[in-house]
Amino acid sequence: MKNKSVKSINSLLNINKRKVSRKKKPGDAPGTLVHTGERVLDNILVTVHDYDDHHFTSLPIKDVGKLGPFLKKETKTWIQVRGLHDIDKLKNIWNYFNLHPLVQEDIISTNQRPKVESYSDFVFIVLRMLSPNSANEKTVSINNEQISIVLGSSYVITFQESDSPIFDPIIKRLGVDNTRLRKLGPDYLTYALTDCIVDHYYSLLYTIDEIIEKTEEAVIANPQKYHLQQIHSLRSDLMAFRKSIKPLRDGLSSLIRDESTLISDEVKIFTRDVHDHLAQVIDTLENSREMVYSLYDMYMSNLSNRMNEVMKVLTIIATIFIPLTFIAGIYGMNFNPESSPWNMPELSCYWGYPAAIGLMAAITITMIVFFKRKKWL
Amino acid sequence: MKNKSVKSINSLLNINKRKVSRKKKPGDAPGTLVHTGERVLDNILVTVHDYDDHHFTSLPIKDVGKLGPFLKKETKTWIQVRGLHDIDKLKNIWNYFNLHPLVQEDIISTNQRPKVESYSDFVFIVLRMLSPNSANEKTVSINNEQISIVLGSSYVITFQESDSPIFDPIIKRLGVDNTRLRKLGPDYLTYALTDCIVDHYYSLLYTIDEIIEKTEEAVIANPQKYHLQQIHSLRSDLMAFRKSIKPLRDGLSSLIRDESTLISDEVKIFTRDVHDHLAQVIDTLENSREMVYSLYDMYMSNLSNRMNEVMKVLTIIATIFIPLTFIAGIYGMNFNPESSPWNMPELSCYWGYPAAIGLMAAITITMIVFFKRKKWL
Amino acid sequence: MKNKSVKSINSLLNINKRKVSRKKKPGDAPGTLVHTGERVLDNILVTVHDYDDHHFTSLPIKDVGKLGPFLKKETKTWIQVRGLHDIDKLKNIWNYFNLHPLVQEDIISTNQRPKVESYSDFVFIVLRMLSPNSANEKTVSINNEQISIVLGSSYVITFQESDSPIFDPIIKRLGVDNTRLRKLGPDYLTYALTDCIVDHYYSLLYTIDEIIEKTEEAVIANPQKYHLQQIHSLRSDLMAFRKSIKPLRDGLSSLIRDESTLISDEVKIFTRDVHDHLAQVIDTLENSREMVYSLYDMYMSNLSNRMNEVMKVLTIIATIFIPLTFIAGIYGMNFNPESSPWNMPELSCYWGYPAAIGLMAAITITMIVFFKRKKWL
Amino acid sequence: MKNKSVKSINSLLNINKRKVSRKKKPGDAPGTLVHTGERVLDNILVTVHDYDDHHFTSLPIKDVGKLGPFLKKETKTWIQVRGLHDIDKLKNIWNYFNLHPLVQEDIISTNQRPKVESYSDFVFIVLRMLSPNSANEKTVSINNEQISIVLGSSYVITFQESDSPIFDPIIKRLGVDNTRLRKLGPDYLTYALTDCIVDHYYSLLYTIDEIIEKTEEAVIANPQKYHLQQIHSLRSDLMAFRKSIKPLRDGLSSLIRDESTLISDEVKIFTRDVHDHLAQVIDTLENSREMVYSLYDMYMSNLSNRMNEVMKVLTIIATIFIPLTFIAGIYGMNFNPESSPWNMPELSCYWGYPAAIGLMAAITITMIVFFKRKKWL
Amino acid sequence: MKNKSVKSINSLLNINKRKVSRKKKPGDAPGTLVHTGERVLDNILVTVHDYDDHHFTSLPIKDVGKLGPFLKKETKTWIQVRGLHDIDKLKNIWNYFNLHPLVQEDIISTNQRPKVESYSDFVFIVLRMLSPNSANEKTVSINNEQISIVLGSSYVITFQESDSPIFDPIIKRLGVDNTRLRKLGPDYLTYALTDCIVDHYYSLLYTIDEIIEKTEEAVIANPQKYHLQQIHSLRSDLMAFRKSIKPLRDGLSSLIRDESTLISDEVKIFTRDVHDHLAQVIDTLENSREMVYSLYDMYMSNLSNRMNEVMKVLTIIATIFIPLTFIAGIYGMNFNPESSPWNMPELSCYWGYPAAIGLMAAITITMIVFFKRKKWL
Repeated sequence: MKNKSVKSINSLLNINKRKVSRKKKPGDAPGTLVHTGERVLDNILVTVHDYDDHHFTSLPIKDVGKLGPFLKKETKTWIQVRGLHDIDKLKNIWNYFNLHPLVQEDIISTNQRPKVESYSDFVFIVLRMLSPNSANEKTVSINNEQISIVLGSSYVITFQESDSPIFDPIIKRLGVDNTRLRKLGPDYLTYALTDCIVDHYYSLLYTIDEIIEKTEEAVIANPQKYHLQQIHSLRSDLMAFRKSIKPLRDGLSSLIRDESTLISDEVKIFTRDVHDHLAQVIDTLENSREMVYSLYDMYMSNLSNRMNEVMKVLTIIATIFIPLTFIAGIYGMNFNPESSPWNMPELSCYWGYPAAIGLMAAITITMIVFFKRKKWL
Repeated sequence: MKNKSVKSINSLLNINKRKVSRKKKPGDAPGTLVHTGERVLDNILVTVHDYDDHHFTSLPIKDVGKLGPFLKKETKTWIQVRGLHDIDKLKNIWNYFNLHPLVQEDIISTNQRPKVESYSDFVFIVLRMLSPNSANEKTVSINNEQISIVLGSSYVITFQESDSPIFDPIIKRLGVDNTRLRKLGPDYLTYALTDCIVDHYYSLLYTIDEIIEKTEEAVIANPQKYHLQQIHSLRSDLMAFRKSIKPLRDGLSSLIRDESTLISDEVKIFTRDVHDHLAQVIDTLENSREMVYSLYDMYMSNLSNRMNEVMKVLTIIATIFIPLTFIAGIYGMNFNPESSPWNMPELSCYWGYPAAIGLMAAITITMIVFFKRKKWL
Repeated sequence: MKNKSVKSINSLLNINKRKVSRKKKPGDAPGTLVHTGERVLDNILVTVHDYDDHHFTSLPIKDVGKLGPFLKKETKTWIQVRGLHDIDKLKNIWNYFNLHPLVQEDIISTNQRPKVESYSDFVFIVLRMLSPNSANEKTVSINNEQISIVLGSSYVITFQESDSPIFDPIIKRLGVDNTRLRKLGPDYLTYALTDCIVDHYYSLLYTIDEIIEKTEEAVIANPQKYHLQQIHSLRSDLMAFRKSIKPLRDGLSSLIRDESTLISDEVKIFTRDVHDHLAQVIDTLENSREMVYSLYDMYMSNLSNRMNEVMKVLTIIATIFIPLTFIAGIYGMNFNPESSPWNMPELSCYWGYPAAIGLMAAITITMIVFFKRKKWL
Repeated sequence: MKNKSVKSINSLLNINKRKVSRKKKPGDAPGTLVHTGERVLDNILVTVHDYDDHHFTSLPIKDVGKLGPFLKKETKTWIQVRGLHDIDKLKNIWNYFNLHPLVQEDIISTNQRPKVESYSDFVFIVLRMLSPNSANEKTVSINNEQISIVLGSSYVITFQESDSPIFDPIIKRLGVDNTRLRKLGPDYLTYALTDCIVDHYYSLLYTIDEIIEKTEEAVIANPQKYHLQQIHSLRSDLMAFRKSIKPLRDGLSSLIRDESTLISDEVKIFTRDVHDHLAQVIDTLENSREMVYSLYDMYMSNLSNRMNEVMKVLTIIATIFIPLTFIAGIYGMNFNPESSPWNMPELSCYWGYPAAIGLMAAITITMIVFFKRKKWL
Repeated sequence: MKNKSVKSINSLLNINKRKVSRKKKPGDAPGTLVHTGERVLDNILVTVHDYDDHHFTSLPIKDVGKLGPFLKKETKTWIQVRGLHDIDKLKNIWNYFNLHPLVQEDIISTNQRPKVESYSDFVFIVLRMLSPNSANEKTVSINNEQISIVLGSSYVITFQESDSPIFDPIIKRLGVDNTRLRKLGPDYLTYALTDCIVDHYYSLLYTIDEIIEKTEEAVIANPQKYHLQQIHSLRSDLMAFRKSIKPLRDGLSSLIRDESTLISDEVKIFTRDVHDHLAQVIDTLENSREMVYSLYDMYMSNLSNRMNEVMKVLTIIATIFIPLTFIAGIYGMNFNPESSPWNMPELSCYWGYPAAIGLMAAITITMIVFFKRKKWL
């Protein structure tokens, strides 16, 4: 049974996989390309979404060479790459866009710290997608993947580990004519993608708060040993969550202050909004941490309360009966009444036994009154 | 009984509703307008307060088109909007003033982080109204609503969730001739509205301090399990309160440093004052948090003290009576005095029984002296 | 007796009166003048100290109009106002010097956060006077009042709540010819007044450290329940003390960096010195807080130590006597030796009783050796 | 057995050797050269790696004078010095490159704080190599040595304490034609060396996380006293690790902002990457610390849980048997039934004994039900 | 015995004397000269060390007037003043060099916060000398005195409280020809003096770490009540140590950034080195604090462990013997077998007594097995 509870906790959230190892060996050249992700799509899927005010085309392509026509200046192009296992194919894309080797390395090292980096002709953004997969089940699994976004002057390239449909709402919105998304440049698309990811953080926060609330109730009602492990696990998850988003906030705020021409002033206002949402998520995370600390304190206090209760029961029983047993012991002594009138004359008294019982009753009542006064009863 | 106490705590303050979810679905366009508030007025009330040095008119309007005459440059206009459920009607107002879609979204997402944002032709302020509704009752309910203020060059628009009369004192002051409020521009009105909200924070602080003080007394006198939940709840409330006002302080200080022409130097001095009040509120909140932590420490120590007391009673009783019972046990043994002169000759001694009782008395007295020395008695 | 100790603690320091409420109602105009102090002098005392290199005059005045001659440019004037209850009279002074309404409000709201504010033609400083009244008594009362200083180009105005003689040393020094105080301008007088107040903080620090030291000794010797309340109270006082001086440090450092012409470079060096003293006070306060936390830890550990001691006594007694009592119980059984040779033949042995006693002695010795080994004895 | 566990912990990681003493005596001149390292190579090994786009030579040299030809401007030169005990020989090198006396002192004081210092004609970097030697054994030994790097315009000099092969991968890469390492200048080599060291931090993080995880499991399953020492040791190690890398991050970020011509813009992008990795390592360290704190909390709670369990067993046994023993004691009293009809008539009842046994059974059952209700059984 | 341990702790380090009182009364003029030190030399010793590249003279002087010849521009002069009790004599020196009254006050107020202050024609440095006097004895006494350094364009004046030989190594080095110390200006001498003091901090750190390590071992082996006081004392000492050096680091870093012409660029490099050493000392202090916190945690856990052990012994003994005693009690009852065949027929059974003993043995074995399973034995 113990094992079970441990298991259910291990599968609780596990944002923090604690995989900080880099598969690249120390001393390897930067840009040594080793894919560190676990989930592998069978094929790398490359989809091109080409759009401007009037047109929107979305089609999968197999050969990077075919990207040429789409990258004509007049239209904006979003190249959505899903799956990171086939480094040769990825290299084709990277070389086509002349991405810096460090960017290449970061895209496939899927334990990157979130960051926003300005290069001379593009902005590189790494974020972490974190969303609860199914909130209705008992154990919550987290969709946890790294998203890399490369924002150029007329294109956006996104790299995802899996083919999860997180960007589908954006694609749907792209299909609608005459929207801001269609009218504005790739910088706005980048904003929309980032915003979409940040919105998912709210769901995760909500899930975490629900877990905290449930644990709270359970700890108040009946603290169990596995609650402690849940609290431990929550602390770990909250730390990992915070670690996954705090650098992004700093990156975004540097992006807002940046004079990069890649991001227009109009879009900067929107970016400021995402930044604010992130700040709110981080604030709320801090509250959740405080609540988890408080939860631990409650757990400990409840343990102490229980101990107190146990001790009180023992003390009441022992304190009442030990004196009574002593009296019974007295009159169980075998002093010989015949050898002396002082030897236990009570034993032959007419009221001896009732008197002894009465004494015991008196002691019991006194004790009970004493405990009532102490509010132990 | 347990349920009761839990209830009374849940209704304690609950600044922290822990509703961080956004109704907008991830991936939705910014400015997707979904009202996230709970309280819904039956009608959206729009009131126009038009004033200058000499005139003051205040009347409800139904049609946004009728705002035109009021917005003539010569007078200052305050459009007070109460109720946020009717997005179509709100849209009329927004479009009339050409508000940015993100501003629109923020106005009706009533779980915004407080903020102060400068746009090209207006300043947008989001604050949280927090005031205790009725301090005389046992359970305190909090009036908790989001206030949005749009400050333009000649107008102020405020958006409230409910029709609570929080701004009535301001309206009353507007009715008085020859005041600073009437003479100065809409920036001063904005200051007055903000100041009014910040003043309410003091009432809340006061209420919280009273609760802490009461809990303190109760914990010192007789710590109960539900106090722990109260402490837990206080920690949560203080965190939520702090989260609701700290970003505002930063926003105000950026407003003071700002070169925006919307706020005159004269009004900036007043804004600095509100900023100082907020800083004081936050300082006091920090003290309250420290006090709540201290409260928890007191609670835990009192538990330990109680345990000590319980253990002392048990130990005193057991330590006195166990040896006595042993002696009684000795003389309750049935060794046959006839088979040997060594077999319990005491039983037939003339002073046997009195000697045994005397021995017991001696032990008792020794023990009591021992406990007195240990200061257990 | 419990009440007593609580009382003695409540009267301990109480820097933190926890009166954060503002008497001004929310929504009232800024500068709405409501006096929030408690102590009220029967009369407002206004004293004018007029001085230059060669002259020094000090006389009480009743009519503000008579201030005129003193404010002639050639001499420096210190207007010392004591008592804040008579708003009409204060208004005369304020209007005479044309003080900003917010300054007026701050002067009589005696729970202000310390601050240093630069206005166009004067500098406004709010500080908190905190000094132990009488250190030799058992209960320390704190002289806690708000001091407001207005520094103009040729005058200084100070506002005190009471007529406590805190500035008497300064007045005495003003009476001495040929001192820096007489030669330099009103900025130096302002420095001298501030320095005087900061010097009092050292006395308070000293008093607090003495209380901590005494509590330390008491907690080590014999921890009592009321020590816990003392620790709680100390935490509260230290927080309040810190809150009362930290903003002042920041204010002073902005004053030093300021290009205001009201404060000469020569006096800025002195102001830097006050700033350093404040920094030292705050550093020492931090140490005191750490010590109070440590005190709590010691208290808790001592509680645990006591519990250990109690448990050891119980365990030693119980562990020795329970087996003995069992043996006595064995030979108190009434098995009939006549019905079987196996039924308790020991009872009729020649050495039966001595052997039983010997067995008991052996057990006792074994136990004692065991406890010695465990270092419980 | 206790000793053993202590030992196994002492050999746990010991990043923190706590040797902060400087062998230089207080008051000695800066640049007083005292080697503070422990490991001493028998010989100081000096290897020259000379390379440009087309050539790569690597050979040991004995005489510093022979360095001349290699330092010809056209090629880049890496002088790798291993062993720091022979100060005379080191002095030859230092003088050859005209290193500042403080740099000389820092190179051989092997407890330096990591730092990045710009001198007029070179950049001096001190880092700490930290890598687990063998993760498969039970006790992990840490390779802990100080690496100093001097980056000049056309050369790099590295100083290592031992001849550990940490830079072998770099040397191997140098042997490959047409790589970035060969094409770019000595600044890129410096980057490569730094990156190699930072990569090793990941291995250490991984090792630490594994230890934490194992301790976690052990603490949950069966908390032992030596776990406490392990937690203590982990806290110490994490602090020491953090201390060893945090200053480096600050140094690197100042290097990135630096206008030094020694580091080209191209290499600065790479340096930014190392900086980011360091930031990630520090973030993860913070998480690990939080986890170790949480571990301690779990340990303490488990202790309390155990205590609770022990107490419950005691309470159940005592609470059931004490009343039973009392009843047995009652009927062991020797009141004389012949002297009064009230003296224990039960003893001669026909159902006396069965009734007594029944009463005992009833009490037992009641108690068990009581404990079941309390969920103690 | 308790007193003893307390004593040995009070004499432990006591960096924190907690004497923050200023002897100057509040309101006294700045520069009111009151010596606040305790140790008083019988005479104030003034020694002049005059040196340049070629000459070095060191001689005591009695009359300040005789300083004139030494202060000729061509040579550098170090005036070493030891003893601060004779204010008249000090005043002679101060006036001779025209020191600011605040500097004068700071020199003799020997509880100054360390600081570095730039005046127009000199730099004023206050530091705290902290070094363990004798590490080999049991109780460590700390040499704790304030050092003030005045650095002018061609002279250095140092003020020490006692005649402790801390600067003797510097004087010795001054005697050596052709050193940097002799060649460079008084700024380098100031660096050398500062460096000498900072070097002593390392010794203190080392001493503290040794105390922590010893306490650690003692707490692990056998936690005693006085360890708690040691931990308390260590916390206090570490706080005081930190307070004594942290402001110095900030002062030095402002000195490095300063454009003061008094310190040459060459010496600034050396100052940067001292700054780094201070940073390392502070880092290590932080580690030590963490270790002391951890120590407290270990102490508390060990207390809990002990309690657990005590409780286990009690529980084992009680749980085994209470049932046995009960059985013995049963067969000690006096039910009359003659009045009923149900009344204790066991007593007359042939195997009655052996069966009872057997039952007891069975219970004992069961219990032991139970405890083995629980791992309590």
